[in-house]
Amino acid sequence: MQFELDAAVAVLGRTPGTLDALLAGLPSEWLTATEGPDTWSPFDVLGHLIHGEETDWIPRARIILAEGDSRPFDPFDRFAHLERPRGKSVDQLIDEFRRLRRRNLETLVSWKLNPADLDRRGRHPDLGTVTLGQLLATWTAHDLSHLGQIVRVMAKQYREAVGPWSAYMSVYRA
Amino acid sequence: MQFELDAAVAVLGRTPGTLDALLAGLPSEWLTATEGPDTWSPFDVLGHLIHGEETDWIPRARIILAEGDSRPFDPFDRFAHLERPRGKSVDQLIDEFRRLRRRNLETLVSWKLNPADLDRRGRHPDLGTVTLGQLLATWTAHDLSHLGQIVRVMAKQYREAVGPWSAYMSVYRA
Repeated sequence: MQFELDAAVAVLGRTPGTLDALLAGLPSEWLTATEGPDTWSPFDVLGHLIHGEETDWIPRARIILAEGDSRPFDPFDRFAHLERPRGKSVDQLIDEFRRLRRRNLETLVSWKLNPADLDRRGRHPDLGTVTLGQLLATWTAHDLSHLGQIVRVMAKQYREAVGPWSAYMSVYRA
Repeated sequence: MQFELDAAVAVLGRTPGTLDALLAGLPSEWLTATEGPDTWSPFDVLGHLIHGEETDWIPRARIILAEGDSRPFDPFDRFAHLERPRGKSVDQLIDEFRRLRRRNLETLVSWKLNPADLDRRGRHPDLGTVTLGQLLATWTAHDLSHLGQIVRVMAKQYREAVGPWSAYMSVYRA
């Protein structure tokens, strides 16, 4: 699929509501479940998504628009969020994510980017030259991929409980 | 995680709202996207989930409660749904799924199953002896696994659009 800004914003705008419908008020055993040591729970993923809103996607887009590829993005600490959620409820985290995402999409839309803008270049500290369109596509795919992680972590909790049906379910084959 | 009815119902009850938040009103290019020939779109998955509500989970639970393992379940046609969604909008399919799921969960709760009931046995036509608890755990994991399929199919549409970032995303490595 070609990247189109409107189609990406349609997905980005739906993620807070999807997380709310899936996770808000769920028994905590689902929210803190993981795939094993050093893997993330749904709770951890929420913290990671919040951290991305604050320090990754829109801040990097601003650097591309203001400075192009003359300086690399600030590195993104993929583990910074693991301290953050302590003491917060899942509902508080979802609200925080929803507020940040709404503000970031308002900012994105306010830029009125045209197709040529999507080709503007930035410099990733490890990956080298990237475009604004690639950054925004990655933001979108990153949401979807972490939604997938959350439901996979949850599904895996029933690996034993499903009994013989595990043979039919690809999530139990990995 | 041990299977507990309340925790499973908490997940099963959230699936219609999650699908609604994720998919309702989305541009159709997302809804009809697939992973290639003979793979399902988000639209197809909705049809499959509706078919399961009508013919799989609660009907099989009824057979276990009424007849135990004295006769096998009716086979479930995993492809029957592919004809069904034609001419319906995604919003219509989500509403249909929501209505069926609500009724099925009302039925499940009305049975007031106790832990001993969860050990009651049925006979799967291919897998052999299974329990009611295993059937209900599979229903739950099946929801989560198809939610994961939908977001994976969507994420894969941006395999090219993310450019160099594909190296960081496990969804593009399969």
